[in-house]
Amino acid sequence: MIKQHKIPRLRQSFGGQAKPKETTGSLKIIPLGGLEEVGRNMTVLEYQNQVLIIDMGLQFPDESMPGIDFIIPNIEYLTHNPQKKILGIIITHAHYDHIGAIPYLIDKLNYPPIYAAPLSKGIILKRQEDFSHLKKLHIELLENHKNKIVHLGPFALETFHLNHNIPDTLGLVIRTPVGNIFYTTDFKFDFHPIADEPADLSRIAHLASKGVSLLMSDSTGAENPGHSISEKTIMENLDKIFAQAPSRIILATFSSLISRLQQAIWLSEKYNRKVTIEGFSMKTNVKIAEKLGYLEIKKGTLIGWKEANQFDPKKLTILCTGAQGESEATLIKVVNREHKYLRIQKGDSVIFSSSIVPGNERAVQNLKDDLIKQGAKVYHYKMLDIHASGHGFQDDLKMMINITQPKFFMPIHGHYSMLSAHAELAESVGIPKSNIVIAQNGQIIELTSNNINATEKFVPTNYVMVDGLGIGDIGEIVLRDRQTLSHDGIFILIALVDRKTGLLYNNPEIVSRGFVYMKESKELLQEVKKLIGDIVSRCTKEQTFNEMYIRNSLRDEIGLYLFKKTKRRPMVLPVVMEV
Amino acid sequence: MIKQHKIPRLRQSFGGQAKPKETTGSLKIIPLGGLEEVGRNMTVLEYQNQVLIIDMGLQFPDESMPGIDFIIPNIEYLTHNPQKKILGIIITHAHYDHIGAIPYLIDKLNYPPIYAAPLSKGIILKRQEDFSHLKKLHIELLENHKNKIVHLGPFALETFHLNHNIPDTLGLVIRTPVGNIFYTTDFKFDFHPIADEPADLSRIAHLASKGVSLLMSDSTGAENPGHSISEKTIMENLDKIFAQAPSRIILATFSSLISRLQQAIWLSEKYNRKVTIEGFSMKTNVKIAEKLGYLEIKKGTLIGWKEANQFDPKKLTILCTGAQGESEATLIKVVNREHKYLRIQKGDSVIFSSSIVPGNERAVQNLKDDLIKQGAKVYHYKMLDIHASGHGFQDDLKMMINITQPKFFMPIHGHYSMLSAHAELAESVGIPKSNIVIAQNGQIIELTSNNINATEKFVPTNYVMVDGLGIGDIGEIVLRDRQTLSHDGIFILIALVDRKTGLLYNNPEIVSRGFVYMKESKELLQEVKKLIGDIVSRCTKEQTFNEMYIRNSLRDEIGLYLFKKTKRRPMVLPVVMEV
Repeated sequence: MIKQHKIPRLRQSFGGQAKPKETTGSLKIIPLGGLEEVGRNMTVLEYQNQVLIIDMGLQFPDESMPGIDFIIPNIEYLTHNPQKKILGIIITHAHYDHIGAIPYLIDKLNYPPIYAAPLSKGIILKRQEDFSHLKKLHIELLENHKNKIVHLGPFALETFHLNHNIPDTLGLVIRTPVGNIFYTTDFKFDFHPIADEPADLSRIAHLASKGVSLLMSDSTGAENPGHSISEKTIMENLDKIFAQAPSRIILATFSSLISRLQQAIWLSEKYNRKVTIEGFSMKTNVKIAEKLGYLEIKKGTLIGWKEANQFDPKKLTILCTGAQGESEATLIKVVNREHKYLRIQKGDSVIFSSSIVPGNERAVQNLKDDLIKQGAKVYHYKMLDIHASGHGFQDDLKMMINITQPKFFMPIHGHYSMLSAHAELAESVGIPKSNIVIAQNGQIIELTSNNINATEKFVPTNYVMVDGLGIGDIGEIVLRDRQTLSHDGIFILIALVDRKTGLLYNNPEIVSRGFVYMKESKELLQEVKKLIGDIVSRCTKEQTFNEMYIRNSLRDEIGLYLFKKTKRRPMVLPVVMEV
Repeated sequence: MIKQHKIPRLRQSFGGQAKPKETTGSLKIIPLGGLEEVGRNMTVLEYQNQVLIIDMGLQFPDESMPGIDFIIPNIEYLTHNPQKKILGIIITHAHYDHIGAIPYLIDKLNYPPIYAAPLSKGIILKRQEDFSHLKKLHIELLENHKNKIVHLGPFALETFHLNHNIPDTLGLVIRTPVGNIFYTTDFKFDFHPIADEPADLSRIAHLASKGVSLLMSDSTGAENPGHSISEKTIMENLDKIFAQAPSRIILATFSSLISRLQQAIWLSEKYNRKVTIEGFSMKTNVKIAEKLGYLEIKKGTLIGWKEANQFDPKKLTILCTGAQGESEATLIKVVNREHKYLRIQKGDSVIFSSSIVPGNERAVQNLKDDLIKQGAKVYHYKMLDIHASGHGFQDDLKMMINITQPKFFMPIHGHYSMLSAHAELAESVGIPKSNIVIAQNGQIIELTSNNINATEKFVPTNYVMVDGLGIGDIGEIVLRDRQTLSHDGIFILIALVDRKTGLLYNNPEIVSRGFVYMKESKELLQEVKKLIGDIVSRCTKEQTFNEMYIRNSLRDEIGLYLFKKTKRRPMVLPVVMEV
């Protein structure tokens, strides 16, 4: 375990203006997650055992991990090396793939201070309320657009404003003894953003003018040509839908997509609609964002459902979660008629204002079909640009490289194909191939003032899975069992062996789930029971009672028999007891 | 069961030119599958108990059906009504969603004759070899481009040539006593197809000139604006890749995509490359297609792997399956280094020439990442038009309606949102809304000479699932069990109760899988065993041995205890026996 931290004091006078001194030491950069995947973002910067952490996110499981709630970064490297001193955790923005693992890891790291912008701070603190067993967090505010420098041991931190699809997204400049690092986090350049300022190009250029040793930049959009779509275009298209909607408008999006919610609220106000918000997480985020001044809502625009229910449907907008077909979100409950009061009405215009997260395509298709069947008109992003990605496309990414003019380049955030595409982009705008590092999760990258080295050394980054109260207790074996169980089910047989005769004591018991429908398989079960008797008496005839031997014989022979009869391979588990 | 059929003889002289006589009877149209989904295509046309079947396809399961091989149409309506006489099964083309259920259903229908084009016949017969217990199929050839009329009871059938992504795709004109039905099946209009003729517009127009009562048309592309991409464009883009590939070219696509294989073969010949084919299904299809003259391959172009292995990599093309990341296909085996002889080499150009079937996005992303890591350059359809859908887009669909000028319109093939979009298209080109029917699977549609009526009557169409040797034996209960098992695993406890004392006879046995890692949960298991003892002795104190009562108490209380301790809900199965 790591020693308890206090908010660190200024340790070294290392001004933002000063050039790094020549030094023989090297800086370690260790991505604990966020490469080779989308999510689980967490990066370690380490200089002489002093550690700065950037983000602490979670990742959603895929279909190979049934039952898992989510995956969090593996922090063994930090917890197993108590000499490492964690100076702080810098949060770039409030998406769960950047903050979601905090409640699971912060105690194991002994509560180091967190540095975050106001909205991020608000959302982190709100979520923390669900984890009442944890201590109070220390969160220091990083104010956007300010020339403030935060000194953390050998590091000095400055931030700059970027566009993403949540306000208060911070790009980072981290001045280190070996040179300056630019860390973009998820970003795009939007010259006409909604409820936000355009990314601060002049500040980025100014900060970069002091020299950029390494640029670490978001690769999520690196396979998409051109520029990402501006929120202005989205606004214009949404306006068209609002202008002609004959009845209620139901807009479904991510609960953290504050700018989209702002658009819907402004358009509702323009077209004289009241707005009601459904879905706990969205309500919470709207409350935090409004309180902190990130949402502009006229008095009287927001109404509760009771009031909304009395309203002329032509004068009502409903904002809700569920655009991914998530089973727990509002929209699917409405369509399944399981929502407490909301039902689809003929003439509703339902807007899916989000992209589809890979893996959710079928759920979203089913949801769309049901909405249309129930009389709604559905608008989705394939029909009209009513959603923009939060990630810059190739032209945005090239622009970032051009403005910062880094010596070294390291693509971050995204699958390998995206990192690789981003590396090619960097090369195409003049970064020499030898100065580009495509790293893997856990790989130790060493940066010195004139060199970058992707070492062959790795720290552990295997998945840490959260399932209920268990953190990291589910491993390969349990997961493989779950997959096997889901594929062909389980077949348990209980054989009591009479210690006097060596024969079955009674009719063996069979319990099976997910294999065949038991009630309709009586004949098969009868045959299996007979076979069990034969196997047991043969085994006890061959040698004295040997539980293991009988168990193995039963498993192998019954398994084979069931496969022959059904071409299915349930997990066969025999229990043998002498009575 | 239905009576054994012979190839039917001409039963009624009902020429293609003749106008249908006025009749009081109505024709029933019953889609047994293919609406509300993609796949499982099968449609029944019925006139006075005489039945014509169009297609007999399967559907691939989604993630809610673990372990299921595939889904086939429910034919209870036919098997439970022996007075229905099945005149024949018309196959429109050889994709598995149109032919795949034949081996599972043909015997239950007593082997009615099948009508199919040559390539479809070849592929159906080849697949039938895997089902050696079945009788020989009667397949009558439907020759494309011919003015042949097939008379089947009250029906007369003519075919016309359409484009899709397999040759020999047949559009159908079915002349019935109540009017002429145009049935497009999956189609697009391609004016520059590869290894195929353009759709025969003049024949379609000519056939339609005799009057079209009902058009049933493919809706899969109805949400996509514009025209579908021509294979000519695909060819040009593939040519660019072939022209500059520095080493081997590996092109992965669907095994039935004959036109794409032809393109790759022609381009290989143009650039002096030999071609080797990997993957059993692709090899089989190439053999059939070449034999029937649907593939043009120069002598010496195709080589086996042994020879290919000796070849200059710059002179080699490998065609293979696995563009969907399927675990059994060639490409994933190559990447996982499990393929017998094929490995990725630095400099390989890998072309994914297929769209991604929804649900496969993650598998394909992983595959791409691994290929790039191993040194390949990957081309996919998002970068370049190197795959075209086989389905017409909105302009194709409108053109079909315009040429055929039907009185009534019924969109088929696709999810509800697609059918609904297609219906809107039809309205936009002048079909009155009241003449358009969006049907559901199993719904009985009645067509008379001057009316179409979507009745409220339905025949059964619930899923029939194939799992190993079982056809239709897996139902809701087994599937739900599989889902539960995969989510939180199973927890089985075996309590032997001493009939003399009413206490546990021995230490209870616990078997658990997919819930917690047993070896690391000894403490939890100890506590559970103690709890079992307490529950058993309490129950036997309350009343004499009552197995059911003890079992229910154990299930409820142990389940609750485990949830409290882990926040997981494994399936708890107690076995209680008196000894």
